Amino acid sequence: MIAVLNRTYETQICSIARTLEVVGERWTLLVLRDVLRGTRRFDELIQSLGVARNVLSDRLDRLVAHGLVEREPYQDHPPRFEYHPTAKGSELVVVLLGLMHWGDRHLAGLAGPPVLTEHRDCGGAVVEQLACGSCGRMVPPDQLITRPGPGARAPDHAAV
Amino acid sequence: MIAVLNRTYETQICSIARTLEVVGERWTLLVLRDVLRGTRRFDELIQSLGVARNVLSDRLDRLVAHGLVEREPYQDHPPRFEYHPTAKGSELVVVLLGLMHWGDRHLAGLAGPPVLTEHRDCGGAVVEQLACGSCGRMVPPDQLITRPGPGARAPDHAAV
Repeated sequence: MIAVLNRTYETQICSIARTLEVVGERWTLLVLRDVLRGTRRFDELIQSLGVARNVLSDRLDRLVAHGLVEREPYQDHPPRFEYHPTAKGSELVVVLLGLMHWGDRHLAGLAGPPVLTEHRDCGGAVVEQLACGSCGRMVPPDQLITRPGPGARAPDHAAV
Repeated sequence: MIAVLNRTYETQICSIARTLEVVGERWTLLVLRDVLRGTRRFDELIQSLGVARNVLSDRLDRLVAHGLVEREPYQDHPPRFEYHPTAKGSELVVVLLGLMHWGDRHLAGLAGPPVLTEHRDCGGAVVEQLACGSCGRMVPPDQLITRPGPGARAPDHAAV
């Protein structure tokens, strides 16, 4: 058993809750957003986010500790680092785009979307959707079923 | 201009930040998760979440105010309400599944996923993915491009 202290959602045997323990802290997803967009240096992130330095430092440390972002030196004197997304961090692109497109639809008002996402090959708008990994078809929400998985009752085995 | 006080991410002209202002508060996405799963009554939500009553009450009020959840009476004496997801709230299923599957891959440990998501028609595993709304093909991350949209510089027009 891995001892886990101060878990935010400690009663929850749920992968959503576990993921939110890693990226659910205020600012964390926006830091990841910026790193994925190519904002790599601490001072650039400060400027982009307008967040307090200690908060940014804490969020970056946590993203690095969980392997979503890598810290790489780009200067020795004084030591300076850049932050690069890992494959594990990049996997959250679908989540970030889902949040973004929902905000575009419901919160952007008359001004419209701040950012457009396009398919490089044809210029079409990119959308996030559910698909079946077996038959390959799109899955509308009413064709989605959920059932308990093998980890439904084994919180002690969760690696957090 | 709509006056907006106490915005968490007030410097951000970004639909991700705006969406997180609505659903980024601690517990909010887990409350929405439960309502989408069919947990409808206050005391059932308390039992499922293990959250303080005032916190749940606050999160439900906020979800109702933003139109993600509807409050419907099911008993008059004393008055009692159920919480039902709206279409607007249900649109966040892709985000919730994205968080869930990421947690399944990286945080579920040896026990495996607590919940399985399946395509009703064929039993295949459901996955979230990016697709092109124009040509219909899947869009791998390296074929995703972003550019400034019409709302990139007009924060005053955002309806929050």
